[in-house]
Amino acid sequence: MTSDADPRFLRSREAILNAARELLLESGPTAVTHVQVAERAGVGRATVYRHWPQAEPLLVEAMATVPMPFLDKPTVPTREWLRRELTAIARQLDLDDVRAVSTTLANTALWDEDMDARRAQFAGILTTRLAAALDDAQARGEITLALASQDAAAMTIGPMYYRSTIERAPADPALIDAAVNALGTWAAG
Amino acid sequence: MTSDADPRFLRSREAILNAARELLLESGPTAVTHVQVAERAGVGRATVYRHWPQAEPLLVEAMATVPMPFLDKPTVPTREWLRRELTAIARQLDLDDVRAVSTTLANTALWDEDMDARRAQFAGILTTRLAAALDDAQARGEITLALASQDAAAMTIGPMYYRSTIERAPADPALIDAAVNALGTWAAG
Repeated sequence: MTSDADPRFLRSREAILNAARELLLESGPTAVTHVQVAERAGVGRATVYRHWPQAEPLLVEAMATVPMPFLDKPTVPTREWLRRELTAIARQLDLDDVRAVSTTLANTALWDEDMDARRAQFAGILTTRLAAALDDAQARGEITLALASQDAAAMTIGPMYYRSTIERAPADPALIDAAVNALGTWAAG
Repeated sequence: MTSDADPRFLRSREAILNAARELLLESGPTAVTHVQVAERAGVGRATVYRHWPQAEPLLVEAMATVPMPFLDKPTVPTREWLRRELTAIARQLDLDDVRAVSTTLANTALWDEDMDARRAQFAGILTTRLAAALDDAQARGEITLALASQDAAAMTIGPMYYRSTIERAPADPALIDAAVNALGTWAAG
């Protein structure tokens, strides 16, 4: 059996992760397959399977190495920005691969510490970014929040996530608007 | 290998499911373990493992045989009823076993047709019950809905589910209130 400390083992792991990262950035999560990763990394498919028997944890690892694209760099008006960001999140959650990776993450995190650390990382980024954007929006008089800004991610992303993974249907613009409106009273404009 | 049509195989499967169902009704989801199910069913633990290598799918099957307890039999005022029901759902989602079974269901449903049918069954019951209760509440003048009543389950259970499985923290009363208020304008009372 190959040791985890074997330099060749570590080198191929690194090459595979780099390939997964490149594919993710170039073509999105659906491109991170064993076949495409093996080809890009210049290793055999069996090597990819040895490191990551399933594709989802590999995608989770690759995602952890690239900047989280959602809720980054808020623009004004905040309400329009948030509507666009939630629409982008809902679109991603319509993809089978994103559904697979997010439910695998939520499930595996219950007994795997590394996956739980990834879960906490992703969740923490989303919660913190949205809270900061909404605190700023409130300071500018754009919204009077009806909840703690730290609850806003659950209040808005939660419905998209439930719709995608439990109800297994697309989130329509009306649901997205309802989630945005649930945050508080938006100033007219 | 034992055939699926073997009468003894079918009998032990039936006994295990009945035992799981009894334990679920008597003591809740945390009681549906391989050890307790084997003892109650009067079969060896290995037999339970042969039918259900993991405990979660057995719990899913058992859950499908008992009436779904949530959002059933609405009472007036609807707002108080819904707050109680969402609190009950949030409390259940605080349990590790319920987290495990719900994320296993969402994850496994992506490639297992039987599990997907269970997912659709549970999701459909919750969506339909809440929509009916809210339509009635609106007809009584209790609320002016801000969204389609079919979107209400995602809007209210979604935040509890995301908080529990992605943020891994308890849903506090403020989040539950925010979800209830997100449904529309409640008449004073």
